[in-house]
Amino acid sequence: MASITLAAADIARVSSSASQILKAVAGSERDAALTAVYKHLEAAKDEILEANKRDMAAAEEQATAGKLSRSMIKRLDLNNPGKWEDMLQGILDVRDLEDPVGKITLATKLDDGLDLYRLTSPIGVLLVIFEARPEVIANITALALKSGNTAILKGGKESTQSFAAIARVVSSALATTSIPPGAIQLVETREDVNALLDQDQYIDLVIPRGSNELVRFIKDNTKIPVMGHADGLCAVYIHEDADEEKTVRVVLDAKTDYAAACNSMETLLVHESVSYTIFPKVASALLQAGVSLRCDPASKQALKSSSLSAAMKAIIQDATPQDYHTEFLELTLAIKMVPSVEEAITHINTHGSGHTDSILTESKEVAEKFMAVVDSAGVFWNASTRFADGFRYGFGTEVGISTNKIHARGPVGLEGLMIYKYQIKGNGQGAGDYGNGKKKYLHQKIEL
Amino acid sequence: MASITLAAADIARVSSSASQILKAVAGSERDAALTAVYKHLEAAKDEILEANKRDMAAAEEQATAGKLSRSMIKRLDLNNPGKWEDMLQGILDVRDLEDPVGKITLATKLDDGLDLYRLTSPIGVLLVIFEARPEVIANITALALKSGNTAILKGGKESTQSFAAIARVVSSALATTSIPPGAIQLVETREDVNALLDQDQYIDLVIPRGSNELVRFIKDNTKIPVMGHADGLCAVYIHEDADEEKTVRVVLDAKTDYAAACNSMETLLVHESVSYTIFPKVASALLQAGVSLRCDPASKQALKSSSLSAAMKAIIQDATPQDYHTEFLELTLAIKMVPSVEEAITHINTHGSGHTDSILTESKEVAEKFMAVVDSAGVFWNASTRFADGFRYGFGTEVGISTNKIHARGPVGLEGLMIYKYQIKGNGQGAGDYGNGKKKYLHQKIEL
Repeated sequence: MASITLAAADIARVSSSASQILKAVAGSERDAALTAVYKHLEAAKDEILEANKRDMAAAEEQATAGKLSRSMIKRLDLNNPGKWEDMLQGILDVRDLEDPVGKITLATKLDDGLDLYRLTSPIGVLLVIFEARPEVIANITALALKSGNTAILKGGKESTQSFAAIARVVSSALATTSIPPGAIQLVETREDVNALLDQDQYIDLVIPRGSNELVRFIKDNTKIPVMGHADGLCAVYIHEDADEEKTVRVVLDAKTDYAAACNSMETLLVHESVSYTIFPKVASALLQAGVSLRCDPASKQALKSSSLSAAMKAIIQDATPQDYHTEFLELTLAIKMVPSVEEAITHINTHGSGHTDSILTESKEVAEKFMAVVDSAGVFWNASTRFADGFRYGFGTEVGISTNKIHARGPVGLEGLMIYKYQIKGNGQGAGDYGNGKKKYLHQKIEL
Repeated sequence: MASITLAAADIARVSSSASQILKAVAGSERDAALTAVYKHLEAAKDEILEANKRDMAAAEEQATAGKLSRSMIKRLDLNNPGKWEDMLQGILDVRDLEDPVGKITLATKLDDGLDLYRLTSPIGVLLVIFEARPEVIANITALALKSGNTAILKGGKESTQSFAAIARVVSSALATTSIPPGAIQLVETREDVNALLDQDQYIDLVIPRGSNELVRFIKDNTKIPVMGHADGLCAVYIHEDADEEKTVRVVLDAKTDYAAACNSMETLLVHESVSYTIFPKVASALLQAGVSLRCDPASKQALKSSSLSAAMKAIIQDATPQDYHTEFLELTLAIKMVPSVEEAITHINTHGSGHTDSILTESKEVAEKFMAVVDSAGVFWNASTRFADGFRYGFGTEVGISTNKIHARGPVGLEGLMIYKYQIKGNGQGAGDYGNGKKKYLHQKIEL
């Protein structure tokens, strides 16, 4: 097979041209394209699973050489029961969401025969960099097409064969539809990505999903806006009036439900007045669940003088200052005593990553203050940080989780892939017709 | 007076700390602060107008030396009739807008006793760089406080004395309120701005208003998101079925209502089939209004063989390729013939700046296509590009006009200074309580 290598600028330009066509494609046609992608993938199941087996074999070799973890191999496996079916169903699920394009979000009669509308519209060209799970390429393809955006995709190198096989099928599916085939392009190397990061003339948004290092590298090396999060350094704060039972449940879930997730708790802040009441019970539950506790002197002292077993006391560790800046992503937890909710808030706003933070308190007033002043995408009251997730929020899908302070924040659904444009429908008016001593603007809301 | 110079990092940190306090300040208190600013400014009128006179005297010297234009001097003058009163009234106008903070934009019952809310919240710390008009500092102060954001301000150097006087009064006004005085800070030199552009740890958004060069410099020299526009390269396209009267009115207004504005037309695209009908009439009106026409060969040919006077024909110029990339900001217009609406759209998407573009046509279908595919913040049908303006849109105020593809696009009102956060109010739930074989999410809309 002849291999055609497009330069980054060409890839970006093709995507930009495709974007202009895609913007005029009706929602029904975008949905039809998703159906075509679904059907072509279904028909190509054997071919794709074969490609996935080649990735798996290569990954096994890497694992044997100690270069890849066993848990990674499991995530690569498209032959895992239910995974293939879930991937295909995901395309139909996205297809069946409400069309996010062309929704009127503002309508104002400026004057008789001069109407202003604000309509949602696709952002344009997305560059999406994601991990090695092979099913993600199908999911992102569906999200991009549903939202009228084109996408340049780069997946983790461990699934190269699977991605290439799926991308080929997506291309052949699109060729049967009104969507230009350049709407979805796959690039294969990190060098491609680096070159694409310079194409701010054509690419409108970069969405990196992957390691903190990857996200930080991308943020530092492009002028294109980046949507995502590098760190998920979530904290839970136990206030002095916290309910014991709720506290144990929430803290345990936040740390142990899935420790490797970005929405898991990494720091526990404890009001000093519960040092000898709730805190030892929380610590005991965490230790029993296998969590390593890294304590500041005050919290360590509290546990040492508690009724915890000697064995438990023996494994309590000392926290270093760095621990309060660390996203452990495993069963390790930094713990700190604080004298007040204000100190807890300051700690979170100084050390946290603006992802998701939770307070345990029975006081509405204290909770409202915490939720107003903690500057994070998610601010929770008596609930686990683990709820920060697009599916749990009911968005039907998730593009990623953003810790940005503009555009989209928190779990991002299809809305995060949209911007808007203003339309005016007039009758030959000029702005010079209005103003002092001339016609006046009506500024009446148009009921739709 | 002792002068205290804060380093950029200190200025940014002070603003960030003030931002955390401001986030917990109620709307009524923010409004009260605006009233205080209004009253203090009113009381300090003489002092501020004196400072303005010193700026004016320095500007006169510059003008005499040929280093400053007369029109600039006029813009500096706070003593101009009505300007002072407008500045003060503007503060009350912003105060009386709806509070943009804490509006619930999504409310979902995830489960009994587990409610999700999305609330608008301030972005945080703004760095606003603006031109020399002295009244702008009062306007931006009002916008920032109303939206719960802190701001670091830098105005054009020609109004240094006026800005300093106004900033002193704003500080003393805030000292009588619950708003931390660090919420509004003024910096005075371009070097300050350059140093602040590195403070992405503390500053959340840069809003540059000024020359294209300034905006481009800022976009190229910071990792902080930038909201604004470098160019306003607006085009008007005359389709083959355009109405003659509407066309002449719209084209004339778009070019001549205020040629120095970013929403004025810089390029006129003409369907070749109206070369000998509407186009000469449009050209005649433009020439009579003193507009220099830079024509491509086809449009020049059309005018040469029209019934235009010999004097008019004699002053028609040839366009260079660069003219179609140029924001003239004066009575000069680049003109080009195109064979189709598709070519017009391609020209606009390739040469334009994504600001505002207009089509003249009697066909709804053609207009809809133009408005869908032209990738600009404003896409108008039979209306002048000059309508692209926050006040004309009815927003009550304008932060600026954005050509960004994310967050805010087009004329930006207070909404553009807001982001949102997610709150969950729970009862001790963990995410591990839900899922396969466990509790199910309800995802019911909460009626407010």
